[in-house]
Amino acid sequence: MGNVSAMLDTYPADLGHVDRAKLTQCIEACFECAQTCTACADACLSDTGVVELIKCVRSNLDCADICETTGRVLSRHTGYDANLTRQMLQACMTACKACGDECAKHADMHEHCRVCADACRACEQACKELLAALG
Amino acid sequence: MGNVSAMLDTYPADLGHVDRAKLTQCIEACFECAQTCTACADACLSDTGVVELIKCVRSNLDCADICETTGRVLSRHTGYDANLTRQMLQACMTACKACGDECAKHADMHEHCRVCADACRACEQACKELLAALG
Amino acid sequence: MGNVSAMLDTYPADLGHVDRAKLTQCIEACFECAQTCTACADACLSDTGVVELIKCVRSNLDCADICETTGRVLSRHTGYDANLTRQMLQACMTACKACGDECAKHADMHEHCRVCADACRACEQACKELLAALG
Amino acid sequence: MGNVSAMLDTYPADLGHVDRAKLTQCIEACFECAQTCTACADACLSDTGVVELIKCVRSNLDCADICETTGRVLSRHTGYDANLTRQMLQACMTACKACGDECAKHADMHEHCRVCADACRACEQACKELLAALG
Repeated sequence: MGNVSAMLDTYPADLGHVDRAKLTQCIEACFECAQTCTACADACLSDTGVVELIKCVRSNLDCADICETTGRVLSRHTGYDANLTRQMLQACMTACKACGDECAKHADMHEHCRVCADACRACEQACKELLAALG
Repeated sequence: MGNVSAMLDTYPADLGHVDRAKLTQCIEACFECAQTCTACADACLSDTGVVELIKCVRSNLDCADICETTGRVLSRHTGYDANLTRQMLQACMTACKACGDECAKHADMHEHCRVCADACRACEQACKELLAALG
Repeated sequence: MGNVSAMLDTYPADLGHVDRAKLTQCIEACFECAQTCTACADACLSDTGVVELIKCVRSNLDCADICETTGRVLSRHTGYDANLTRQMLQACMTACKACGDECAKHADMHEHCRVCADACRACEQACKELLAALG
Repeated sequence: MGNVSAMLDTYPADLGHVDRAKLTQCIEACFECAQTCTACADACLSDTGVVELIKCVRSNLDCADICETTGRVLSRHTGYDANLTRQMLQACMTACKACGDECAKHADMHEHCRVCADACRACEQACKELLAALG
């Protein structure tokens, strides 16, 4: 995702006092987590243990949708709405926490859940740090 | 959107104590608002007054993405997560309030903004009522 | 989805020679099918027969994403690209046909698949008619 | 997007004869292009030359949605549908070509369009190579 910071650098207006490193990291983590959760939902479906992974699929689908939307909202700077940004970061942290916890339960048995739990933890952390940096 | 309630009625497991009428109304409002906001962003772009509508386009794009994701989360009942549902409803209300307020400023001049402001108000209200019903 | 035609009516520039009735119907069918497929994927996950419905879940997820994107593309008229519109309609018809066929196999056993098969058929037909009307 | 290949490696069933390197590259390019186009649409809105960039915003929005959906479809392997995959790759190439051409017109004047044109070209190429590899 090398373009995330390039797009911040070429934004033609004032970005305000945002922490660019943390914003870049959070946008990248959101898109990464959206892809990983989409793939984990599909891996669960093809797993011989699918009946144990039903809740995991559902958490994956929610987390993919919410990370993607959060990544989109964070990629827009025009008419910045601090309140909405904060609420989406909060919802994204909640989705990543829930999905990361669910995947972590299956991480020993299912490698795809281990990779996905890590992606969820990383995204949750990136959202948390950006939220703190927003003040 | 006649299928929303049909899909609730044919859900093969226990839906819990949810208020089906309010859930149906909220899912319908989310998808409706997502479409209207997508169309309003595009109408703003083709409007002769586009330079006055820049913030409106941005609000429309956020609101479309957030309504769509909220509509998807509400359409899933397996492994229901009350906390995540509440936070998405809250974020959706905030997005609809912001977009509705912005569109309302242009409603006298631009008919597409008037229609969109109404869709945003209706979706905000449906989210509020569902949130209250969730207890 | 009463706003779809209202947004077409309030579009501030020239819509060209499009068949408004068929465009309205197709946009509505895309958003309706996206919601129904999202709900059917979730219903399959909670069904006691989930292991027989794995392929159905996957078809539902693809169909939901493609219908939603097609509905968004059709909701934009600025800088209309006939070639891209046709290819998305084609892909949407293919997704709806595949998902409708898969759901139809389970329609006798699972009511949610019956409702979803109907939504897929309706959306496939609406895309086909709009494609024909585009010339 | 380091997880794309990790998720392919941990997929618990048979991936078939797919070219994993090209599939990985294409999924990564789709998510990257979706983010870049979302950011370019927003950069155009805040550009002093916005009135010259209206068609560019529209192309960006379509391309973001189509790349994202293509990236999701490619991230699923369960019940693989070669026909649908090919049609989405074709539509994605068309969207990337159109958006890349439009952004390229403004690349000398607007750095964000230069970065975005490159992302579109890269995604178009990755789709083309994967399509060829699918046979």
